[in-house]
Amino acid sequence: MSNSPTIQWGDPGIQREVPGGLIQLLEKRMKWKAGDALPYPRPEFVKVPKSQMTDEERRQLSELIGIENVKDEHDERLRHSLGKSYLDIIEYCSGELSLACDAVLYPGTAEDVSSIIAWASQSKRKIIPFGGGTSVVGGVNPAGPALTLSMARMNKVQHIDLQAQTVRVEAGILGPKLEGELNTQGFTLGHFPQSFEYSTVGGWIAARSAGQQSTRYGKIEDLVVSLTVVTPAGRIETRTVPAESAGPDMDQIFCGSEGTLGVICDATLRIHRVPEERSWVVALVPEFEAGMEAVREIIQRGFHPATIRLSDAPETQFLRALSSEPSKGVTGHAAAMISRLYLRAKGITGKEGCLLLLGFEGESELVSHESLAATKCLRNAKATIVDSAIGEGWFEDRFRLPYLRDPLIQHGLLVDTFETAATWGKLFILYREVKEALDTALTFERRKPVILAHLSHIYPEGASLYITVVAPARIDEKLQQWRDAQKAVMDVFIKQGAALSHHHGIGSYQSEFFKKQAGRLEMDVLRAVKASLDPESIMNPGKLGM
Amino acid sequence: MSNSPTIQWGDPGIQREVPGGLIQLLEKRMKWKAGDALPYPRPEFVKVPKSQMTDEERRQLSELIGIENVKDEHDERLRHSLGKSYLDIIEYCSGELSLACDAVLYPGTAEDVSSIIAWASQSKRKIIPFGGGTSVVGGVNPAGPALTLSMARMNKVQHIDLQAQTVRVEAGILGPKLEGELNTQGFTLGHFPQSFEYSTVGGWIAARSAGQQSTRYGKIEDLVVSLTVVTPAGRIETRTVPAESAGPDMDQIFCGSEGTLGVICDATLRIHRVPEERSWVVALVPEFEAGMEAVREIIQRGFHPATIRLSDAPETQFLRALSSEPSKGVTGHAAAMISRLYLRAKGITGKEGCLLLLGFEGESELVSHESLAATKCLRNAKATIVDSAIGEGWFEDRFRLPYLRDPLIQHGLLVDTFETAATWGKLFILYREVKEALDTALTFERRKPVILAHLSHIYPEGASLYITVVAPARIDEKLQQWRDAQKAVMDVFIKQGAALSHHHGIGSYQSEFFKKQAGRLEMDVLRAVKASLDPESIMNPGKLGM
Repeated sequence: MSNSPTIQWGDPGIQREVPGGLIQLLEKRMKWKAGDALPYPRPEFVKVPKSQMTDEERRQLSELIGIENVKDEHDERLRHSLGKSYLDIIEYCSGELSLACDAVLYPGTAEDVSSIIAWASQSKRKIIPFGGGTSVVGGVNPAGPALTLSMARMNKVQHIDLQAQTVRVEAGILGPKLEGELNTQGFTLGHFPQSFEYSTVGGWIAARSAGQQSTRYGKIEDLVVSLTVVTPAGRIETRTVPAESAGPDMDQIFCGSEGTLGVICDATLRIHRVPEERSWVVALVPEFEAGMEAVREIIQRGFHPATIRLSDAPETQFLRALSSEPSKGVTGHAAAMISRLYLRAKGITGKEGCLLLLGFEGESELVSHESLAATKCLRNAKATIVDSAIGEGWFEDRFRLPYLRDPLIQHGLLVDTFETAATWGKLFILYREVKEALDTALTFERRKPVILAHLSHIYPEGASLYITVVAPARIDEKLQQWRDAQKAVMDVFIKQGAALSHHHGIGSYQSEFFKKQAGRLEMDVLRAVKASLDPESIMNPGKLGM
Repeated sequence: MSNSPTIQWGDPGIQREVPGGLIQLLEKRMKWKAGDALPYPRPEFVKVPKSQMTDEERRQLSELIGIENVKDEHDERLRHSLGKSYLDIIEYCSGELSLACDAVLYPGTAEDVSSIIAWASQSKRKIIPFGGGTSVVGGVNPAGPALTLSMARMNKVQHIDLQAQTVRVEAGILGPKLEGELNTQGFTLGHFPQSFEYSTVGGWIAARSAGQQSTRYGKIEDLVVSLTVVTPAGRIETRTVPAESAGPDMDQIFCGSEGTLGVICDATLRIHRVPEERSWVVALVPEFEAGMEAVREIIQRGFHPATIRLSDAPETQFLRALSSEPSKGVTGHAAAMISRLYLRAKGITGKEGCLLLLGFEGESELVSHESLAATKCLRNAKATIVDSAIGEGWFEDRFRLPYLRDPLIQHGLLVDTFETAATWGKLFILYREVKEALDTALTFERRKPVILAHLSHIYPEGASLYITVVAPARIDEKLQQWRDAQKAVMDVFIKQGAALSHHHGIGSYQSEFFKKQAGRLEMDVLRAVKASLDPESIMNPGKLGM
C-alpha cells in the first residue's frame, strides 16, 4: 500500500485498466485521442504543508489516547486530507496539497472521543471526524488548521439483538466487516452504497447515504434506531425505540450532520433476515422515459423490489463497450453478458435500448410472486425481457465499476458523477437540462462530453437520477473546468427544486449551493443546533455551509 | 351542537350508551356499583376567565383577518381551551376553567397566518395553533394568556399530483374531507388515527400521529414529503423531493414540534392507490406473549400487513362484553361477531384467548399471497383461525369505540389510555410493569382497576403497546388520582427506556416527564431550534417541556 497513490480507489492489488472497446467508444464520441496513461504520483512525491501540531499538543494528546494513536507521518496526513472526488484527485496530482490535517488521532472508545473533543474545545482546535474517507464532496478535507479524528479503531460489533433484529456497532466499522458478522447470524443490513467496501457506518449516517438495495431497505437514515454522539457540549444517547411521538426525531438531526455537530460513536441499526431468495428481472426498454414510466408503475402498485436500476441508452452502450475485452475489463463478467444478451434481444437494434435491472429479494414465495408480476408490468410497457443472468452479473461485479475511474482520468479525462432526486414529473426535465448544461459547460474545441445516466433508488413519488460525465480534461484548467461543470449542474438542480444530493452529501464542495438552496431560515436552524452542541465551533468547519 | 357539552367526543347526534353486559363485567371486576349517569354540564354552565383581549387588539386583528374571523364568544373560547383527555373532562366538569384562550383567530391563508404571527411577535402575545382539538396530552390548552389560532378555514386540497402520488393540502383539513377527495381520484392517504374524523393534517404532523394502518403506510412523519411552516422568524418551505442528502431532514424538525416552532400551513404528503383488495386474517391465540411472537415472526419475515392488532385476554373479554346488547352498543356489529365466533373457536375456552386481527390490503395477488402465508405462520404458532368477518366488523366500527368513554365517565369511572413503544425484548416486561403500576396506583378500598391492553403499529424491531384503564373515580380527588396513575405509568416508561408516547405526543401533561427522559442536551437542542425560529417565545408555551 505504501507505494500506491493514496488517492486511487480501493484495493491497490486490483489491476485497473480500461477495456479497449471503451477507449474506442470514447475516442469516437469525443473526437479525442487517448494518450498514454499518466500514473498518479506516488505519495512521497506529494507535498503537504508542515504540521502545526506543537510538541505540547502532541504530549497532551498522547496522554489522552496513547502516543501510538497520535500520528503525523506524511502518508497518514496525506491520506486523511482528501476524499475520493475528481477534485481531490486534481489536488493530489498537482503534487502539493494547499491544506492538510496536522495529525490523525485514533481514539479507541467513546470515552477517548470525549476526551479528545473536550481537549479540542479547550484548546480551540478544529476536529474533522473521518470514517472511510470516501467522501466525494470534500467532507473530510481541512478548511484550515485541524486535527483529524479517525474512527478506524472503533470498529466492533457490540451487540446483535436477534429478537428486535437490530445491531449496535461502533461507527468506525467498515461495510464488509459488519455485513460479514451479520451474515454469520443469518442477517444483513441491506445497505450497500457503491463505497461499501471502504466506507463506515458513521460516514453513512453523517452523509445520509443510500445503498443499492435502498428501494427495499431504505436509506441509512431509515435504518437508524438510535445513536450515541459525542458533541463538544456532551454526549447524547438517543432512545432505542421503534418509533415515538416525543418531540422531533433527534436521530434525524444527526443523520446528515456531516460531522459538524459531533462524532457519531455508535449506532443501533435495523437489520433484516438474509433473503431466502434473490431474483432478477432484466429488460430492455426502447426509451428512457418509457422505462421511467414502467418503473413508476411497478413501485406505485406496491411491489417491493430491492434494486431498480434503469440506464439510459448511452449508459447501456457504455456497459456494452466494457465487455469488448472481457479478459481485461474488471467488470468483464457482467458486461460480457450484457453484450451477448443485448444483441440477442428481439426487436431492439444494436445501438438502442435502455437496460433495466430489477432485483427482488426476501421470502421465497413473495419474491417469485413479485418477479412475475413485475415481468407482466414490463411486457405491458413493451419492454423486452432478457436473461436474468445480466442482473446476477451486475450484482456480482457492482463494487468493481469504480475501479474504472482512475485509469480513465490517467488517460487525460475528466470523470465525475452528479446525483439528485426529484418527483416523477421533474425527472425527465432534469435529465434533459442537466445533459444540456453539462454539454454546454464541457464542450470545447468541438469535443463534446459523454454523458451517461441512470435512475436508481426508486420511491413511489420519484427517484434518484445519477449522471456520469466523461470529457477530455483541459490540462491547465482542470479545476476551473470542473467548477464550471459543477455550477452548471447545481444551477439546474436549484432551478428545478431538486435535491442537491440524494446520497453523496454536501461537504465543502457543494456548500455554497446548499446555502443558496436552503435559504436563510434553514441555515439559521442548522447554525442554532450547531451553536447548542458545538459552541466553540470546532467540529468539521466549512462543511454544510457552516 | 350548541347545547351539547363541547367536551364530549365526536358527533353530538350519536347516542352514547354503555352496553349492559359491559357494565355488568365492570361491576363484577371492580366490586363497584354503577350509579346513574351524570351528564356533562352544558357549555353555558362552564365558566371561563374573562378574555384579556383589549379592544385595540381586537381592532388590529380584525384589520388583519376580518372582524368575522376574530371570535371571543364564550362557547368558542371554551371549546378551544381544552383537548379531549380525561384531565380535560375533569376540568370541564368542574364547571370552571382556570385558563382559557382570550380569543380564537381564524386565518384563511398562510399570508393571514404570517400577519397574525408577525403581529403577535410584536405585541408579545402567545399563540396556540389549533387543528381539530383532539389532543389527549394538553396540546392546545393555554398555559397563560394566549390567543388560539384555529386552522379550520384552511381546509382545502390544493393539488393532487397523480404522477408523483402526492397531495398538497392546507393543514386545517379534517381526515374525512381529505380522504374523500383522494378517494374520488382513486387514492388514499392510508392514515387513520383513532381521531381521524375530528383531527387535522396539521395536528397529525405536529403530534407525530399514527394511523391504524401504520404498519403498511408508516406514521405521519413517514408520509410527509414537504411542509410550509410560518414561524415568527419567517416562512419555511421545505423541498418536495423523495429523499435527499443535504443536511438533516428539515421536515423532521417540524414533525413532533407540537406548535412550539410555528404554524404548519400546508403539507405535501405521500398518497397510495386505493387498495384493490382488503383481506382479514383473524385468530385467537391462547397467550398474549405467544401472540407477540407470532406477530413478530410475520413482520420480520417481510410481509406487509396494514393493520395488526393483538388484544390481551382482558381486552378480548371487554370486546366480547360489548356485544351483550348489540342493539344498544355502538360497537354492536363487530362485538356480536366476536362473541359468536369466539365461542365457536375450537380449543379455546370461553374466558380465555387473545384476539389477533391482521388486515392486508393492496394489489390483489399480493394480498392473497400474504394473507395465506400469515395464516400458515399463525397455525404454526398454534393460533386458532376464526372468521375473518370479525376483522371486517372491527374495521367498519373502528371510529365508534371512543364514544364509549363519555358514558363510562358519566357513570363515575376514570377512563384513560396510555401508550408507548419499545423493542420486542422489552414489551412483555413493560406490559407487566405498567399493569402492576396502574394496579397499585388505582386500587383503593380493595377495588382494582380493569386494565386492557393491545399491541398495534408493529415494526420489525418492536411495537406500540396501548393500555386502557378503567377504575372507579375518587370523586373528590379525581385530579390527584389521575396524576398518580400517570406518574406510575411514566416512571415505568422512563425506567425501561420506552417511548413516553408512540402517537399521542407530549403536550403539557407529559412535559415534565419528557424533560426528565430527554435530558439536558436534547432539551438544549430543542430550545436552540425554538430560539432561532421563535425568538420571542410566543408559540404554544408550556408544551414539549418548553
